[in-house]
Amino acid sequence: MSIDARLSELGITLPQPAAPVAAYVPAVEANGLLHISGQIALAPDGLMTGRLGEDRDLDYGVAAARICGLNLIAQMKAALGSLDRVERIVKLGAFISSTADFTDQPKVANGASELMVDVFGDAGKHARSAVGVPVLPLGAVVEIDAIVLVRPA
Amino acid sequence: MSIDARLSELGITLPQPAAPVAAYVPAVEANGLLHISGQIALAPDGLMTGRLGEDRDLDYGVAAARICGLNLIAQMKAALGSLDRVERIVKLGAFISSTADFTDQPKVANGASELMVDVFGDAGKHARSAVGVPVLPLGAVVEIDAIVLVRPA
Amino acid sequence: MSIDARLSELGITLPQPAAPVAAYVPAVEANGLLHISGQIALAPDGLMTGRLGEDRDLDYGVAAARICGLNLIAQMKAALGSLDRVERIVKLGAFISSTADFTDQPKVANGASELMVDVFGDAGKHARSAVGVPVLPLGAVVEIDAIVLVRPA
Repeated sequence: MSIDARLSELGITLPQPAAPVAAYVPAVEANGLLHISGQIALAPDGLMTGRLGEDRDLDYGVAAARICGLNLIAQMKAALGSLDRVERIVKLGAFISSTADFTDQPKVANGASELMVDVFGDAGKHARSAVGVPVLPLGAVVEIDAIVLVRPA
Repeated sequence: MSIDARLSELGITLPQPAAPVAAYVPAVEANGLLHISGQIALAPDGLMTGRLGEDRDLDYGVAAARICGLNLIAQMKAALGSLDRVERIVKLGAFISSTADFTDQPKVANGASELMVDVFGDAGKHARSAVGVPVLPLGAVVEIDAIVLVRPA
Repeated sequence: MSIDARLSELGITLPQPAAPVAAYVPAVEANGLLHISGQIALAPDGLMTGRLGEDRDLDYGVAAARICGLNLIAQMKAALGSLDRVERIVKLGAFISSTADFTDQPKVANGASELMVDVFGDAGKHARSAVGVPVLPLGAVVEIDAIVLVRPA
């Protein structure tokens, strides 16, 4: 089954890939690895903002991380032409806007990690780091970047 | 001398490689580079927690970074089968739980960096970034991820 | 035109590549990718320190990010021999010392991103992540690391 068919089966419509908010590009392919810029949680009804441990709860963080994941997949498709060129999700780097006493960054980041496995199966199993940060661009609650192993075009 | 023999010479027993605390895998090999998930300071007697500049001193931070380094090496061995497949430690990414006025992140991260050179010699000399963060998963005091160049199996 | 000629045209003199402040090396080349250690804003008259949203304004942050970029280019030259071996700037990872309510990290990081495009043209267009952190080594206001695709020597 193609990844597009799998997305349909899951009822997922990819968002428009977001334009960078500054002077860089969404993704660069180099030596078989696609490095994707940090994606913030741009949902159809606007950017998901705030801070875990303060004005946002765990469910909101998980939903935001999933949106970051959808934006990462949208960037893969835009960069590669077809999602079937994704050989493996290698690494996600998750930055979670957090107060000093919120320590559930792994549960938040799972919103993106579980999406990758739902969509890509075993090829979606990745290495990951997840850390708390005090603040993110535009007040975003989550930012996630990625490295993807790709098949030649 | 094999790396296992070098570990014995240094009196180092590797910890059990830690299971991920969430929906991801410990390491992914892709195009000759092994990306290892962020390792927190899981010591034999429990997780090393706290914050530099607040309730933990520099020595504690250095010890925690060394434990992160041991966990990274344990993950290399689990992923590669043999540590002799390590050709070069390429990059460490160190995140140090810090108050706003603690600025000795480089000294803390040296706990892992010096371990890599002790164990792998010249092949252990790596690029690095080290930054302060307000909080880490489960309250960990240090988290470190890694990229390793590997020889074919 | 060589990159050195382009630097002259832009009136840019590269700084001396900074020695690491701890037990690591400035850059490691592996499988065609050069990973460069996080560079802080070491200007000719000293380290640019402080925190955005507190004691530093946006212009200062942008200038510091540009200095980080110059230091990254100086490290490329030191590691590669010639800047003409730079095939593509793949990724910048920008860490901006920020209060909890400063959200213009993308504008700050542009100080480095725009420099890369000025110097390398299309080859300077990179993926990027930019996040806020509470504090950086030695009190630096910005730290940026990089991944560069390189041509064989």
